Amino acid sequence: MQTASVPAGIAERRTRAWAPYIDAKLGFRNHWYPVRLSAEVAEASPVPVQLLGEKVLLNRVDGVVHAIADRCLHRGVTLSDKVECYSKATISCWYHGWTYRWDNGKLVDILTNPTSVQIGRHALKTYPVREEKGLVFLFVGDQEPHDLAEDVPPGFLDADLAVHGQHRVVDANWRMGVENGFDAGHVFIHKSSILLDGNDIALPLGFAPGDPEQLTRSVTGEGAPKGVFDLLGEHSVPIFEATIEGQPAIQGHMGSKMVAISISVWLPGVLKVDPFPDPTLTQFEWYVPIDEGRHLYLQMLGRRVGSEEEARSFEAEFREKWVELALNGFNDDDILARRSMEPFYADDRGWREEVLFESDRAIIEWRRLASQYNRGIQTRDVR
Amino acid sequence: MQTASVPAGIAERRTRAWAPYIDAKLGFRNHWYPVRLSAEVAEASPVPVQLLGEKVLLNRVDGVVHAIADRCLHRGVTLSDKVECYSKATISCWYHGWTYRWDNGKLVDILTNPTSVQIGRHALKTYPVREEKGLVFLFVGDQEPHDLAEDVPPGFLDADLAVHGQHRVVDANWRMGVENGFDAGHVFIHKSSILLDGNDIALPLGFAPGDPEQLTRSVTGEGAPKGVFDLLGEHSVPIFEATIEGQPAIQGHMGSKMVAISISVWLPGVLKVDPFPDPTLTQFEWYVPIDEGRHLYLQMLGRRVGSEEEARSFEAEFREKWVELALNGFNDDDILARRSMEPFYADDRGWREEVLFESDRAIIEWRRLASQYNRGIQTRDVR
Amino acid sequence: MQTASVPAGIAERRTRAWAPYIDAKLGFRNHWYPVRLSAEVAEASPVPVQLLGEKVLLNRVDGVVHAIADRCLHRGVTLSDKVECYSKATISCWYHGWTYRWDNGKLVDILTNPTSVQIGRHALKTYPVREEKGLVFLFVGDQEPHDLAEDVPPGFLDADLAVHGQHRVVDANWRMGVENGFDAGHVFIHKSSILLDGNDIALPLGFAPGDPEQLTRSVTGEGAPKGVFDLLGEHSVPIFEATIEGQPAIQGHMGSKMVAISISVWLPGVLKVDPFPDPTLTQFEWYVPIDEGRHLYLQMLGRRVGSEEEARSFEAEFREKWVELALNGFNDDDILARRSMEPFYADDRGWREEVLFESDRAIIEWRRLASQYNRGIQTRDVR
Ligand code: FES
Ligand code: FES
Ligand code: FES
Repeated sequence: MQTASVPAGIAERRTRAWAPYIDAKLGFRNHWYPVRLSAEVAEASPVPVQLLGEKVLLNRVDGVVHAIADRCLHRGVTLSDKVECYSKATISCWYHGWTYRWDNGKLVDILTNPTSVQIGRHALKTYPVREEKGLVFLFVGDQEPHDLAEDVPPGFLDADLAVHGQHRVVDANWRMGVENGFDAGHVFIHKSSILLDGNDIALPLGFAPGDPEQLTRSVTGEGAPKGVFDLLGEHSVPIFEATIEGQPAIQGHMGSKMVAISISVWLPGVLKVDPFPDPTLTQFEWYVPIDEGRHLYLQMLGRRVGSEEEARSFEAEFREKWVELALNGFNDDDILARRSMEPFYADDRGWREEVLFESDRAIIEWRRLASQYNRGIQTRDVR
Repeated sequence: MQTASVPAGIAERRTRAWAPYIDAKLGFRNHWYPVRLSAEVAEASPVPVQLLGEKVLLNRVDGVVHAIADRCLHRGVTLSDKVECYSKATISCWYHGWTYRWDNGKLVDILTNPTSVQIGRHALKTYPVREEKGLVFLFVGDQEPHDLAEDVPPGFLDADLAVHGQHRVVDANWRMGVENGFDAGHVFIHKSSILLDGNDIALPLGFAPGDPEQLTRSVTGEGAPKGVFDLLGEHSVPIFEATIEGQPAIQGHMGSKMVAISISVWLPGVLKVDPFPDPTLTQFEWYVPIDEGRHLYLQMLGRRVGSEEEARSFEAEFREKWVELALNGFNDDDILARRSMEPFYADDRGWREEVLFESDRAIIEWRRLASQYNRGIQTRDVR
Repeated sequence: MQTASVPAGIAERRTRAWAPYIDAKLGFRNHWYPVRLSAEVAEASPVPVQLLGEKVLLNRVDGVVHAIADRCLHRGVTLSDKVECYSKATISCWYHGWTYRWDNGKLVDILTNPTSVQIGRHALKTYPVREEKGLVFLFVGDQEPHDLAEDVPPGFLDADLAVHGQHRVVDANWRMGVENGFDAGHVFIHKSSILLDGNDIALPLGFAPGDPEQLTRSVTGEGAPKGVFDLLGEHSVPIFEATIEGQPAIQGHMGSKMVAISISVWLPGVLKVDPFPDPTLTQFEWYVPIDEGRHLYLQMLGRRVGSEEEARSFEAEFREKWVELALNGFNDDDILARRSMEPFYADDRGWREEVLFESDRAIIEWRRLASQYNRGIQTRDVR
């Protein structure tokens, strides 16, 4: 009992059940990922982004967002290092003037040699784009893109749901993001959150789970989002008093408002917490792989609104209250957790040596589902 | 004669005699190492340290220092990233409340799930601790710890020896530290030291050694410290005037006080210079591996004292005089030397290509002794 | 047509034609390279430099520049970390006083042990040095050095050519430097250069090349510089108006002065543009490998002068006008291009995936010539 390592055979059998997930350092191919708020991509104002290890350049042309690879075919320079657009429909490489259309990536002209045989023979990789709910989604992969609705949590695209949000870069692999967010037991790190001061919500320290078979529910139907519900809240006793070696140690936060009743995670890596951070709100979070060691943490709050006025009122409330209290105040604790887990998993050691417990059942189910239903593993070679 | 490289065969034969030492980038296992001054580890105030590549968390509980691995068994986060202790005897991980005893590392409770089957089944790695002479020593390895007295220079634990010291981190492998310290010829770098201004000591430029067989003496008895004495001072002519191509070039520092009469190095890598930096003092130095490229440079000065008053007087003298003049002023030169050697040896090239000379005989003897009498090689895998 | 990758077989055949060039990350051995302006190497003032991955220490002794390896034979420390010279003809290592002659690298004395057997038995590597045209050239390799005139562009050593220049470090492999400089099509990046404001020169956007067979001319005669002329200017139509999908897009800079009529590149990697940046001047540029990811960008402007007064007048004009307008203002654009290409080629991916066009014919010819006529590939092992 001196050391905690799992016998090698068991650890191997265990990790084999989610081997594809362990390989997916750069995320899953052939899925939709949000990369920016719509408002951040203005007309004729190219925006460089990176996801799944790929550098992409966005631009809005006549209201429609397009996305092309941000690397010139000729000598490989980064187009966004010096943006030069001489027509609305195109971008010209600043180095030798190779000129590409935003909509299909085609090399339509070369400003330094209008007679070149290369004109018309090549095209930059383009990325399918969808704009919904104030977000710009890209499809990364080589398959025909499926419906965006399959890659967002149920309800997110509902017409009466108003959403607002923000994003930032976190120095941890995207899986640290998903697993931190979808981890019922992690409520413990929020026990002193500023959110509790301004909000009469009930926040236990953790949960004593009941029947393990009832703790999760997977959703894997054809043509619809694939995800896992964590049913820990329903099938466990919330812990509001904790003891250490028999002595009282610490208490949870009692309150009259119930939140986080339904928690679920969806491919390709997006969380839904309902309601949260308030009984009238739902929180959605994406952890978009940037590269092996960073993810874009994109947080959205949604509320069902019945009128323009309700929509405006929610927007004001979002800016004045929820950004500081919830999206920053509350979730900053999560960012520490992701960064602190990162070194343990960065060289794949953590997957073999971690010691899981009852509350992690939902995480394991997510790893299995993701391993089975993803549409491809992104690697440095396939990009 | 254009290049200085040693014929490959000779270099190989030579390095084979100290191959284990070359492998010991992270130091030797199953030895005692000092990591902090006792005064730095206060009651109920956890202190994170790193040695031999391992992250360790110290704490003093009811006066006794304990040491546990600074990585939670559950998801691998660093416990010291956010210290949370809810009982005197334990530390709770800030992420999901796994709670470990300081004294034996046992997982005694989980605050987020008091009914978990994992409680009582696991334990963090603990490190044996000894406190002596105002230093906290840790034992890193898997053997039953031997007597601390075997891993410190003879005399260091003597009851009448009062010691004071300090430590800092140096960006060089620990072997650069040992070899710089135990190198009689390196006196040359101190020729303009501030220590000479304030202290009438004799400091030659170097030594013209006599019979090579008489230059070192190894001590390898059972159950006692293993080390090497450098007898260069006794069996050589000290150089106080140096010439270049027949012309006078530079002079050593004449003085009436003799210092550094006896120099010795001891496993697992600790130096004793007696007397130094004054005829009434002895200097002890540890070069504790932190990781492959850094060591903790821990310097102690000792003086035999016969009364409380002498002890107090020494402590005042240490703070007012010796820290600035000797431990910093004099030894800062050594730090430059270790850092400047580092790139040559970092990829093991230096061990093959170095060109040694007479004064290095003691260093070679140390390499041989360390290769033969160490209790194990630390590697990234065995940790 | 969706992606632009070249079929693997073709890319391989193509890169095989310049495989040695692709291997030459650290440059070519057994050539002369300029490393500093003569004025920067003063009497008795050692100057550390790095080229082709080797650390070298320069010094001027009685007017003559010498170059020795900047690493002590004994324990490998960097001599220039603390320069100590006790005689005009030598440098002594600051660590143990091993003392080397500047002119032949010989270990002539050891200040810490005047009786050592090593004295006279070893020597630091020395580098042949030539000073010409205010530049210090080093020869890196193991062959007998050939005539410096073979490694500089024709005309550079002419007696009536006065030259002035400067240098800086660029974070890109040296080949990015050569190929950017010798790239006729890259004129496009200079279309808004400050040089055009102050100078009535003609600068087209690019060139529509004619017969590909006439676009380059190689010079490979025995005992003379080996290089390639880019004849694009002669055999193509300069582009002053560019269109995108039939619509006018951008115009070149018309002017009365013709520049850059003759452009050539020479082993081991030096450019000549004649005339430039003015009809009375010639620009020479070296891209000296420092290590795999950096080069020394050394720019020289030359003008034929007939008298001391003309020489003085040129020097004043150089400092007052051409440094800001041309060497910095104009060529800063080139530095962006080299840095932006670097990631694509750093892992050798760019050599396989680049899509070249007509204007690149001269670059291809240079790669072939360099692959065939270089005198050796520098690697980390041969150093
Ligand atoms: S690198 Fe883009 S046009 Fe040449
Ligand atoms: S990571 Fe420490 S309790 Fe979960
Ligand atoms: S390292 Fe240079 S003399 Fe010892």
